[in-house]
Amino acid sequence: MARRLGLDDYLTGIEAGDRTILARAITLVESARADDRRLARELLDRLMPRTGKARRVGISGVPGVGKSSFIEALGVKLCDAGHRLAVLAVDPSSTISGGSILGDKARMNRLAQRDEAFIRPSPSARSLGGVARRSRETLLLCEAAGFDVVLVETVGVGQSETLVEEMVDLFLVLMLPGAGDELQGIKKGILELADIIAVNKADGDNLGRAREAQSEYASALHYLRPKNDWWRARSLMVSAKEGTGLAELWQAVEEHRAALEEGSHLATLRRSQLLAWTRREIEDSLLEAFKNHPRVKARLPELEAALESGRLSPSSAAETLLSDFGLSGV
Amino acid sequence: MARRLGLDDYLTGIEAGDRTILARAITLVESARADDRRLARELLDRLMPRTGKARRVGISGVPGVGKSSFIEALGVKLCDAGHRLAVLAVDPSSTISGGSILGDKARMNRLAQRDEAFIRPSPSARSLGGVARRSRETLLLCEAAGFDVVLVETVGVGQSETLVEEMVDLFLVLMLPGAGDELQGIKKGILELADIIAVNKADGDNLGRAREAQSEYASALHYLRPKNDWWRARSLMVSAKEGTGLAELWQAVEEHRAALEEGSHLATLRRSQLLAWTRREIEDSLLEAFKNHPRVKARLPELEAALESGRLSPSSAAETLLSDFGLSGV
Repeated sequence: MARRLGLDDYLTGIEAGDRTILARAITLVESARADDRRLARELLDRLMPRTGKARRVGISGVPGVGKSSFIEALGVKLCDAGHRLAVLAVDPSSTISGGSILGDKARMNRLAQRDEAFIRPSPSARSLGGVARRSRETLLLCEAAGFDVVLVETVGVGQSETLVEEMVDLFLVLMLPGAGDELQGIKKGILELADIIAVNKADGDNLGRAREAQSEYASALHYLRPKNDWWRARSLMVSAKEGTGLAELWQAVEEHRAALEEGSHLATLRRSQLLAWTRREIEDSLLEAFKNHPRVKARLPELEAALESGRLSPSSAAETLLSDFGLSGV
Repeated sequence: MARRLGLDDYLTGIEAGDRTILARAITLVESARADDRRLARELLDRLMPRTGKARRVGISGVPGVGKSSFIEALGVKLCDAGHRLAVLAVDPSSTISGGSILGDKARMNRLAQRDEAFIRPSPSARSLGGVARRSRETLLLCEAAGFDVVLVETVGVGQSETLVEEMVDLFLVLMLPGAGDELQGIKKGILELADIIAVNKADGDNLGRAREAQSEYASALHYLRPKNDWWRARSLMVSAKEGTGLAELWQAVEEHRAALEEGSHLATLRRSQLLAWTRREIEDSLLEAFKNHPRVKARLPELEAALESGRLSPSSAAETLLSDFGLSGV
């Protein structure tokens, strides 16, 4: 079990859909060790032709919106319908704590017991960019292992939603029932990211308020230019508890997929995802290398103080740091 | 006149508010020549204590919304009220064409004739980052020369609005009258950037539609979390043609300034602007140096083809390029 696997072990295992090997491959791509990184890259290069076929769905929403029970209810339904489902998470707090959301499969107990489902908690890394990179690679591994639906859960904080949106084909935002004043304070930019808004907990006494919320979101979406010319974001209602609305929601996902497959939208999207991921990795690595450069780190406090006290312009501060990093005359 | 000025000439001239010297200092910060850059940085360092006091207002809006006539009408009013006003422009298209908006002072003829006003067309540069850097430095020069209001005009395209928003204290978005379906298609993220939305051309036959638009924007803004806890974005109506609403608009700008000066918001904002500008310059320079690196440039086409055909993972593509650039093992 603890035997170090070689490239061929990983390839054969993943192509056969072996979950133990898949889990170990994910551990490999999550590792920061130089030899692990080399092997991970070789493995991914070889698996690339087997990737790109899944429905990639991002799922976001504030804490308390019921993401876990929603994913469990939807996931079980998808397994029943013959899908093979991977559930991943991107959690910025895992940069510090080593993973919080999805840290416990017990939260999705029924789903975790299904052979068709594979649940993986958020990777941890020193930076959000690192978390995102590991998640993108895990997504590719899951596709190569034959999962045809990949759900990527994220908490509604900071940059993580943008990074997940870049990873997936469809971005689903869960919202709480409520209307009027309660709708105030929608997170910046979230309406622009959403392909589908689903008002969860549309059951029992909440039903009226859920209906109001759903129609308010519909009109808020109405104000915005569509993300692309082949899909208009819509809002609907679901109840993870009662299982209502899930079929309609998945129907919308399938309609989105059908629109995506018309013409060459899907091929275009896959190409731009690969290029965007490469660009992200390069940017993250450049900035990381810059931030961790010993001379840059040593100089920073003195420059910040000089900026604040009006003794230095941003251009001089930038120039000094860039030359500390070994770039100059830029 | 064509005599090369030294640091002291620039300093004395700018501190005396000499417009000819100011214009030459702006030409200096716009220059890409290494010796000009060195002198520009020295000059800015020395002038920093004289900066930071102006009302910095960003102004955006689609072509046809009447930005020039709005700025002219508002600008003349401000000059009459004793303000000294600088009008700058950030135009991404100037990366190619060498400047289009504000290229012609004739568009603001009345304002251009005022001694209290200084109008400067968009700088041009190889990249939008370069345009933004030059504009930030020009803004600082204008402040040091004693202008107490700086308007920064931008066209509503791409990243330029975000860059201008980072430059200013208050971001004003001009909109056309119109309601219902005509309001569809608001540019992504623009509502989140706006501190004030002004529906222009609220005159004559347009008045009813302007009123509808103003109230629709008010309710759209209602959906969003405020940018900060001391200001709530508002929408109002103006007519550049008839001069109506301009006093109310400037009143809102002054209220925003008063809120900013309460507590330590202004000091906090100035500090974060300086740090953000420094960060932007560093990021732009790093990415620019990367993109222009001869080995990176030579390698790119082959890697893109390998990515598209599924022979290479984004991680391998990124690693190869980073090592071409001289960074590896990241």
